[in-house]
Amino acid sequence: MKLTSMLAPYLPILTWGRTYNRGSLTNDLTAAVIVTIMLIPQSLAYAMLAGLPPQMGLYASILPITLYAIFGTSRSLAVGPVAVVSLLTAASISRIAAPGSEDYIFAAIALAFLSGVFLVAMGVFRLGFMANFLSHPVIAGFITASGLIIAASQLKAILGIQAEGHNLVQLAESLWAHRQDINWITALIGSLTTAFLFWVRKGLLPLLLTLGLTEPVAKIMAKTGPVAAIVATTALVWLLDLQNLGVKIVGAVPQGLPPLTMPKFSLDLWSSLLTSAVLISVIGFVESISVAQTLAAKKRQRIDPDQELIGLGAANIGAAFTSGFPVTGGFSRSVVNYDAGAETPAAGAYTAVGLIFASLFLTPLIFFLPKATLAATIIVAVLSLVDFKILGKAWRYSKADFTAVATTMAITLVVGVETGVIAGVLVSILIHLYKSSRPHIATVGQVPNSEHYRNVLRYDVITQPHILTIRVDESLYFANARFLEDHLLARATQQPQLRHVVLMCSAVNDIDMSALDSLEAVNKRLEDMGVSFHLSEVKGPVMDRLTGTEFLEQLTGDIFLSQKRAMDQLTPLT
Amino acid sequence: MKLTSMLAPYLPILTWGRTYNRGSLTNDLTAAVIVTIMLIPQSLAYAMLAGLPPQMGLYASILPITLYAIFGTSRSLAVGPVAVVSLLTAASISRIAAPGSEDYIFAAIALAFLSGVFLVAMGVFRLGFMANFLSHPVIAGFITASGLIIAASQLKAILGIQAEGHNLVQLAESLWAHRQDINWITALIGSLTTAFLFWVRKGLLPLLLTLGLTEPVAKIMAKTGPVAAIVATTALVWLLDLQNLGVKIVGAVPQGLPPLTMPKFSLDLWSSLLTSAVLISVIGFVESISVAQTLAAKKRQRIDPDQELIGLGAANIGAAFTSGFPVTGGFSRSVVNYDAGAETPAAGAYTAVGLIFASLFLTPLIFFLPKATLAATIIVAVLSLVDFKILGKAWRYSKADFTAVATTMAITLVVGVETGVIAGVLVSILIHLYKSSRPHIATVGQVPNSEHYRNVLRYDVITQPHILTIRVDESLYFANARFLEDHLLARATQQPQLRHVVLMCSAVNDIDMSALDSLEAVNKRLEDMGVSFHLSEVKGPVMDRLTGTEFLEQLTGDIFLSQKRAMDQLTPLT
Repeated sequence: MKLTSMLAPYLPILTWGRTYNRGSLTNDLTAAVIVTIMLIPQSLAYAMLAGLPPQMGLYASILPITLYAIFGTSRSLAVGPVAVVSLLTAASISRIAAPGSEDYIFAAIALAFLSGVFLVAMGVFRLGFMANFLSHPVIAGFITASGLIIAASQLKAILGIQAEGHNLVQLAESLWAHRQDINWITALIGSLTTAFLFWVRKGLLPLLLTLGLTEPVAKIMAKTGPVAAIVATTALVWLLDLQNLGVKIVGAVPQGLPPLTMPKFSLDLWSSLLTSAVLISVIGFVESISVAQTLAAKKRQRIDPDQELIGLGAANIGAAFTSGFPVTGGFSRSVVNYDAGAETPAAGAYTAVGLIFASLFLTPLIFFLPKATLAATIIVAVLSLVDFKILGKAWRYSKADFTAVATTMAITLVVGVETGVIAGVLVSILIHLYKSSRPHIATVGQVPNSEHYRNVLRYDVITQPHILTIRVDESLYFANARFLEDHLLARATQQPQLRHVVLMCSAVNDIDMSALDSLEAVNKRLEDMGVSFHLSEVKGPVMDRLTGTEFLEQLTGDIFLSQKRAMDQLTPLT
Repeated sequence: MKLTSMLAPYLPILTWGRTYNRGSLTNDLTAAVIVTIMLIPQSLAYAMLAGLPPQMGLYASILPITLYAIFGTSRSLAVGPVAVVSLLTAASISRIAAPGSEDYIFAAIALAFLSGVFLVAMGVFRLGFMANFLSHPVIAGFITASGLIIAASQLKAILGIQAEGHNLVQLAESLWAHRQDINWITALIGSLTTAFLFWVRKGLLPLLLTLGLTEPVAKIMAKTGPVAAIVATTALVWLLDLQNLGVKIVGAVPQGLPPLTMPKFSLDLWSSLLTSAVLISVIGFVESISVAQTLAAKKRQRIDPDQELIGLGAANIGAAFTSGFPVTGGFSRSVVNYDAGAETPAAGAYTAVGLIFASLFLTPLIFFLPKATLAATIIVAVLSLVDFKILGKAWRYSKADFTAVATTMAITLVVGVETGVIAGVLVSILIHLYKSSRPHIATVGQVPNSEHYRNVLRYDVITQPHILTIRVDESLYFANARFLEDHLLARATQQPQLRHVVLMCSAVNDIDMSALDSLEAVNKRLEDMGVSFHLSEVKGPVMDRLTGTEFLEQLTGDIFLSQKRAMDQLTPLT
């Protein structure tokens, strides 16, 4: 076996790199140019959202996007700073250091490093399934609430005032307290830019199509709206000297390659960032993989979740060593990359080259860029994530899912992002455990003239006074073992003529030791009542496990392959 | 409806009290006398185990046993201090106050009160199912580890030295550090008493039977061994003035009725006791209900778990108001009560009268009782709880259950009782979630010449290259939704001729919103690949829920009542 084919599963580049040709190159280059143009304002804006210097947004895109190209499995995913992860970064590190301080920057770098190591570890140990505990209702509730918090946090820049807070309540109070300080020129620039960007989202595409552009070109041009807004507002500030009238600008951004950094090794810092690193990793991974899978399916390509973890982990470790902050695969940029025709992860590498060019030569151009413009691009981006319809949808589908959405949303808005996610995960686990702790249990009887046995409450079936057949629609495990025990014993004491109890196990996929003990107890207690206990329709793997247990030795009744056989044998011939 | 019949479900006494007659009275009185004799040393010993004055053990038995007689549903359960709950009490309150101090006593009373309120609340809100999360492996591991810790903690009294600690490591270190201080007379009394009590357990019953006693009488007499040990060692100390040679004695115990106490209302105290109160309540409830159910089943009586919570809650609140500490239904005393012929909970009330007599008149008699004797009764009682066989049994049955037992046991022994239980509960929940997050998924095919569809790996079945049928043996919910999604998509990309994917849902008892979203995603992605997605054998309640969802509207394929119909329709006639 050759070295390359041994490494291939861990280095997807060895697979696609082999068939790389001039056609792919052209497509990837085109996509890279478009994504670069889109990424510049996004990167600056998300750095600002995270409370970091704008250039760190560019730095966080260069090496990460390249490393993902080597280790990731998606051919279209564009990795870099994204809104929700930037918000989580800010929430986490602002507990440790003051925004603007050097410690704050170190903390962001350490967070990217920890998150990268955690992602790689999850990938290597194949722990990607952990991400499953972020249920869809929790993600939906969290994303909507985070979108609102992000939008609210950006209002300060739009209005040119100071405001702080990590939840909607704090932000609203803080904005209200500073309402006298509004800089009206900033507010005008900010609100016009916001309105323009909303219009770009809804109105530009139809306009471009009417103007005769083809749909793919029009779609991509519509995404460059933020660049136009940046150019226009920067020029406006420069021409009218608005910075002297209190309009806050980005100012001097250092030119040059991302400076190499070494993540600080500090157990204290690391332990205070650990929970946040886990949350950021898991949330970032979930966001990234769903984008990657959506795009891959369209080309019948395959995403390997465990390899994706390694790809994203490498990207974050890369961010930590090049003055970046936590990154993940972003939705909008990946879609643009895909639409622009990116064929392989090489497009990402070319984007990195574009961003290097930007950080080397373009930063002086954004000196006069108003912060309000960046805030406007953030607000427009995140408000598209806000979706209250999920509440109604969840309510109609199931009250359990509604509870999970509503809890996550409410706690995120009122308490904060990290508490919100954790509460959501705990609530959904508790709801699941609660549901499976009281499984659906039906008393069944024979559908006349058939071999079918159905719920006595749903069907007109034949039952016998000396036989009770109970079907339980859940695997038997500790959370429902005693419930079943209580139910069976309660039913048995109610039926004085009872001689046989049959537990129909057609929907029982597992029996754990607590459930086995409960079945043993049921068997003994029924025996004390003079009633035999039988099982029917036990599945193969469950039967394998029961074989050789005391329960089976002590069972007063039999195990029947089918419910029909049980009834045939237990019904006396009359 | 009469008031009494309205109240009957909440006051079981109204049910059994109505048919109370002279026969029941005689039986109950006999049982009460025997249980009283047994309870006196037990109560003193468990108070000592909890680090409390011995008379509190008596107090904790009087009103609680009476209140349980009114509110509880078991006819044989004897409520009072028990070993494990006393150990938990000591572990909890010694964090707050120094043993021997007044605050320590107040904390014990507050703990009983909180635990009582919590139990009543669980009963009223029908939250008894919460106890299910203490799985059998966790309970087994915890009881064995606690038994060892209790036995180790009593070694100090047996040896007449000082030793402290809340886990086996601390206790062993402390005993070793004080090894020079052993009082050899105490050690002699202690070890002989222990040996005698072990012999009583194993050897006395056969001896009494050989001597011609009937089995019930012999059984009960064998339980009075501790009383004999107490009488003998007390007499010995008194006769030889051993207290002057360093043998620690119980000393002056106040005579009189249990003093009324008012649980201290202190939010600080309560909040620091809350977790412990919850743990004690749940563990006490689980211990109590399993005893109650075992005994009730023998007489085909019914135990109502929610009413039991109220009964135990009332008992604990009673303990709090009469200078007691947390109580629950004990195993050995309830078995004695049952064996002695108790017919109704009135036996408990008569036992209370016996204990009042004891605390009024008998306490001077135990002035010379050596503490080593009490320690010996505890050691012998708890070592019978220690059962390492559970490790092997769990290992053979399932590695998951073994992990839960071993974790609980190890953490309880090394860290402490509360951490041990909590770790055990968390580990068993995580294991359950992990298992259900990677459900058994089988590719199925048709068993030749039949309507049965089975696992291709277990049976020799017929499959078709353009149809893939997958059966998933688990309810679909957030923890396994993405796993199924990955599996289906991975399988679909492997089979180039594929046109149809059928998901066989015969073992799917529920589909939550995350799983629905995953199915929607699978449907869309398969559509992108040109493959239709079908479901078969969907259960009634699951189908009810799916009706009206977007998923069903967008489904590219059909929903088939049976797998056979699916295959008939999807197989082209050739």
